[in-house]
Amino acid sequence: MGFLLTVSYDGTNYCGWQDQRNGKTVQEVLSKAIEKTLHSDKFTLLGASRTDAGVHALGQRAHIISHVPVKVPVERMPLVLNTHLPMDIRVTAAAAVADNFHPINETKSKIYRYSICNSRYSNPLLRNFSAFIPIELNVSNMIAASKHFIGEHDFATFCATGSIVKSTVRTVYTLDISKKDELIDITISGNGFLYNMVRIIAGTLTNVGLGRIAPDNIPDIIASRDRIRAGKTMPPQGLTLLEVIY
Amino acid sequence: MGFLLTVSYDGTNYCGWQDQRNGKTVQEVLSKAIEKTLHSDKFTLLGASRTDAGVHALGQRAHIISHVPVKVPVERMPLVLNTHLPMDIRVTAAAAVADNFHPINETKSKIYRYSICNSRYSNPLLRNFSAFIPIELNVSNMIAASKHFIGEHDFATFCATGSIVKSTVRTVYTLDISKKDELIDITISGNGFLYNMVRIIAGTLTNVGLGRIAPDNIPDIIASRDRIRAGKTMPPQGLTLLEVIY
Repeated sequence: MGFLLTVSYDGTNYCGWQDQRNGKTVQEVLSKAIEKTLHSDKFTLLGASRTDAGVHALGQRAHIISHVPVKVPVERMPLVLNTHLPMDIRVTAAAAVADNFHPINETKSKIYRYSICNSRYSNPLLRNFSAFIPIELNVSNMIAASKHFIGEHDFATFCATGSIVKSTVRTVYTLDISKKDELIDITISGNGFLYNMVRIIAGTLTNVGLGRIAPDNIPDIIASRDRIRAGKTMPPQGLTLLEVIY
Repeated sequence: MGFLLTVSYDGTNYCGWQDQRNGKTVQEVLSKAIEKTLHSDKFTLLGASRTDAGVHALGQRAHIISHVPVKVPVERMPLVLNTHLPMDIRVTAAAAVADNFHPINETKSKIYRYSICNSRYSNPLLRNFSAFIPIELNVSNMIAASKHFIGEHDFATFCATGSIVKSTVRTVYTLDISKKDELIDITISGNGFLYNMVRIIAGTLTNVGLGRIAPDNIPDIIASRDRIRAGKTMPPQGLTLLEVIY
């Protein structure tokens, strides 16, 4: 029996989604809640995205295959699972899926948000949910630069060095930048993302906002396939996985 | 020498602003940072508002009177103080004030925000910064009800029982309610607030949103001066002191 969960979490106190050698992971804590819900450890659990330590999610997906009959009706599953979870992890939906469903291979698109607190002094309420940049960013230039990322490109420039992937070609569907008070939100959707790609794109757009990169240089930087030409990898706490679409 | 600081904090890990018998307070931690900045403990510190445990601030004010000469220029004071503060407390401004300045008596108005996460399941990213109400609130009715609070009234209905104050008359200048996605923000300004008044008004407006109180009953409830007719005191984590105006 297969189920697809939608999961939200505050990643601040976790070593990311997946089992690590040290420290508590979201998958591990969720796995214990599933075990209590099913009264069995005869199940497998696979996340759609392996979010890093400190990264948040409002729409992570987790696929369960249970090898024992599941007595809890699927519509009650979020409620029951949540009674076994800490308040920084919530299951917000559950659906039955076909036996051959695969949560990673069948992903059509993902949406991420990267948030920057852009003010003279950092905001304590936003410190775990944004990167802090004390120098005023030119948001118009960031928006101009953002257009160049849209479409199918080889994104090798924006991939953490040392990553091993078959292809570095990905398609970015949308890249929106908005500012409200001191908070700049970069929202990006695409058919898939390389390791650290969103955080490196956010770092590159930050350099544009700081005047270190001209918006029209982005096509060259993409074409270079040279990690060193992109901005730095922005810190994890600014990143939130908003949605995984099948 | 007198100084007025503007202070932001995430109240989650503090027992409120002021010294309590148990646990760490914001005033205590700020006091230690001031001591390190002045290289002296010969100063007094008084906050404009005694926020409760778990309550946040983006514009708390703290008045320092130093009995030793202050060598740090006032414009550098936030930077220097912040080096001695944890990331959940930030000083965002400092100004010299007259010797006879009083941070409480001279307050012209205060602005608070009360936030409610109104969705079927709670949002882990908002859990420390909002109250959670899983039943859909009727925001139009809440807005209709909010108008009745504006103006000078005896707010005894909305004062924690057992509080000792000379007068329970206060003036509410504005009360705005907005909803964005699942987050409802109630923003209220007034010349002063009784103990727990904002949290009890938020609880009363929540009852209106739930259909338990009709918007037009608010004038009667205010006139009753009976705490039992108001809604419950909403939890502290939804409350943020936005501004203290002199």
